[in-house]
Amino acid sequence: MPDQSTICAIATSPGAGPIAVIRLSGEKAIKITEDIFHSPVSNKRLSNEKANTIHYGTLCEGPEIIDEVLVSLFRAPHSFTGEDVVEISCHGSVYIQQRILQLLISKGARMARPGEYTQRAFMNGKMDLSQAEAVADLIASTTRASQKVAINQMRGGFSSEIARLRGKLLHFIALVELELDFSEEDVEFADRSALRKLVDQIAEVVSKLKDSYRLGNVIKNGIPVAIIGETNVGKSTLLNALLNEERAIVSDVHGTTRDVIEDVVNIQGTAFRFFDTAGLRDTVDTIESMGIERSYGKLKEASVILLVVDTTNLLPVITGRIDKIRELLTDQHLIITANKVDIGLKETIEGLKALPLQQDEHLVFLSAKRKEHLDKLISRMQETVALDQIGEEDTIVTNLRHFEALTRALESLQRVQAGMDQQLSGEFLAQDIRECLQYLGEITGEISSDEILGHIFRHFCIGK
Amino acid sequence: MPDQSTICAIATSPGAGPIAVIRLSGEKAIKITEDIFHSPVSNKRLSNEKANTIHYGTLCEGPEIIDEVLVSLFRAPHSFTGEDVVEISCHGSVYIQQRILQLLISKGARMARPGEYTQRAFMNGKMDLSQAEAVADLIASTTRASQKVAINQMRGGFSSEIARLRGKLLHFIALVELELDFSEEDVEFADRSALRKLVDQIAEVVSKLKDSYRLGNVIKNGIPVAIIGETNVGKSTLLNALLNEERAIVSDVHGTTRDVIEDVVNIQGTAFRFFDTAGLRDTVDTIESMGIERSYGKLKEASVILLVVDTTNLLPVITGRIDKIRELLTDQHLIITANKVDIGLKETIEGLKALPLQQDEHLVFLSAKRKEHLDKLISRMQETVALDQIGEEDTIVTNLRHFEALTRALESLQRVQAGMDQQLSGEFLAQDIRECLQYLGEITGEISSDEILGHIFRHFCIGK
Repeated sequence: MPDQSTICAIATSPGAGPIAVIRLSGEKAIKITEDIFHSPVSNKRLSNEKANTIHYGTLCEGPEIIDEVLVSLFRAPHSFTGEDVVEISCHGSVYIQQRILQLLISKGARMARPGEYTQRAFMNGKMDLSQAEAVADLIASTTRASQKVAINQMRGGFSSEIARLRGKLLHFIALVELELDFSEEDVEFADRSALRKLVDQIAEVVSKLKDSYRLGNVIKNGIPVAIIGETNVGKSTLLNALLNEERAIVSDVHGTTRDVIEDVVNIQGTAFRFFDTAGLRDTVDTIESMGIERSYGKLKEASVILLVVDTTNLLPVITGRIDKIRELLTDQHLIITANKVDIGLKETIEGLKALPLQQDEHLVFLSAKRKEHLDKLISRMQETVALDQIGEEDTIVTNLRHFEALTRALESLQRVQAGMDQQLSGEFLAQDIRECLQYLGEITGEISSDEILGHIFRHFCIGK
Repeated sequence: MPDQSTICAIATSPGAGPIAVIRLSGEKAIKITEDIFHSPVSNKRLSNEKANTIHYGTLCEGPEIIDEVLVSLFRAPHSFTGEDVVEISCHGSVYIQQRILQLLISKGARMARPGEYTQRAFMNGKMDLSQAEAVADLIASTTRASQKVAINQMRGGFSSEIARLRGKLLHFIALVELELDFSEEDVEFADRSALRKLVDQIAEVVSKLKDSYRLGNVIKNGIPVAIIGETNVGKSTLLNALLNEERAIVSDVHGTTRDVIEDVVNIQGTAFRFFDTAGLRDTVDTIESMGIERSYGKLKEASVILLVVDTTNLLPVITGRIDKIRELLTDQHLIITANKVDIGLKETIEGLKALPLQQDEHLVFLSAKRKEHLDKLISRMQETVALDQIGEEDTIVTNLRHFEALTRALESLQRVQAGMDQQLSGEFLAQDIRECLQYLGEITGEISSDEILGHIFRHFCIGK
């Protein structure tokens, strides 16, 4: 039973600005606005005006003028929500924004819940669920890559990929069910080898989509970079130089950075998520030990490890540390960041230069304190993920919910594959295929529960 | 020579939000937008579309889609600036906002300077200078009174008042100049007593407008309230209770609040500007002495004095203090705020109740610590300025520039009055009248220099 109430909210960023936009959506959106709107054109009534037109006038509470505004009219179904929509463009005083909202509420509108406009757009068939989710991603996008992936998803790139997969699965299930209808006659209408090929194809696409989440997550949340190294090698100084501000405590006392500090920052168009970690050294300080444990844990989450080493130390100390870290790594990029190069030991620097590097390993010499050669480090970090090679048409999964649904869909498909290997009857295969269809349907919202919807839209901001 | 360039800026509050609005104004506003706008309706060209219409489509940089947007078209002279204006409503990601701005700039627009939209509106005769200034006041308005006065000024209330005055002055000068033309014949065409009456009328109106600035300043900047009293009577506790947050240091050590802390806060719809002052006691502490000197200085700026007294003290101590403060006051409201009423001495409380109050004096018993009876105090403070009695049509001067111009205009008029008393010839009178006209013209911008304009609009925000 859809909610018929008319909702209102401020649609622009909170706070004062030159102008602000207040949006109404619902059956009474135009009527409510008309009640408080006065046009200098005599006898102008908003309800008689055409869709997609703009009207200048005043908003009044009784005889009192609240503001001079522009009112934009949109009519169902040709609006964002698919309902009648009014956008009031007012002067951006917070007082005026609040006053207008109060006035609208007193006339019968109610405050919109988080994401309610987008939810209504979904409910009214203006977009599917993955597109609705992309709206939030688009608003939150901070880099070219995240904007690119979000707008592709919002415009239905991902949805059409899923629809294609579902189409193939439905074709498959139709063949299998045909077989079932004639099961007593022990006939195999569906050519098993053709079926097998189809399942393999589908599984490959699902698997590829699922795997794209690793990149998608990086795009959405930034490249996770762990900065590790012994105490006093300049980790915090390096992080600060990268962040270009004093966010972590920097000091000469060993073991200052006790906790994992997380900072997301755009550097030259790429988002990085930095973990600055407690120094990796043997310590009896319990609090610090806890910090160090966390440091090692963060290694697994990171896709880039900046191992900071101090070139004023002797070479064996450093190579020992490098070897130890190599043991801990799985498939992360390791960037050996040789710091204090301005005051480093000549032998250490020469020794590092001669060090044989393995695949996915890089070596950068710099001075964090003097902010020298930081550019080289940034380039190396950017190269670890080829964000600029994402094509306009590439479908990349950025949403954990989608990733989980794809993972389960893939598992279903793998069961189908195993079942076919075991010559299971169509009945058993069909069950897993239907499960797979369900998981894919959850992504686009063809199959959805109030709980899922509630969870998704609760995390939107109000006004969207 | 007016600037013909097309300007662009973000018109909504900075930061991310559901949507943001980017505004272009100038000859090429529509053309520039058209260059990057793609409508799903084939062959739709923005330049062919009607004014005051809204168009859905995508903004693209080459093949890359930046965002799905709504474009609103306004055509000269029927727009805010009087030029062609385009408003682009995009998703409110900061990245997208910046990207669109960059794109518009690459297509030939330039970033707007602070207040440049309003300045163009003024230049193109859409509003006079005092109306333009009211736009900034309206955006900055935080209370009902400040919004009311700003919108009245923006809608031309003040301007028409000034225009009326100028009309009268021009009539006067016409009469005087007629007299001048025939001066050799020593004829007085202008009836001197009628002239005198006219000048007196004009001077009265100017004087009234000038005097309204005292209220206007309160409306715009808050009612200035000085909290004074000996140390340890609970001044900071009271201020904090009023602000409902810990802004000033509160402690039991005498003389904690060394400096004048200023806080503007809305309490129940009225803006108050509080000065919390150093304790008024004899002290050898130099720093504190300086603080106390400032406390006395603030008395003159305040229109309300909250004299906080401690009811746990003996009555004569308190009445002594009250007498001392009374000597310092000129026309401020004095609110004797009897604190610690929960633990106060019975005799002191009874004694205070029996205290004869003078005009503009009030007595309130409360406990700042327990936040008891604060409402009474707030009511008393609100009553000192009858903000709710401002009529819809009342003209109130809130702008220091206008106040100064009115002050000088009044001085000119007083010279005219004096000149008439001395039977000066029309020639001399005309000179002062012209000066008066000039000052009034500066308010509305009929007479203005680039310097004045630059000064006014520099303090606007960008995008307005």
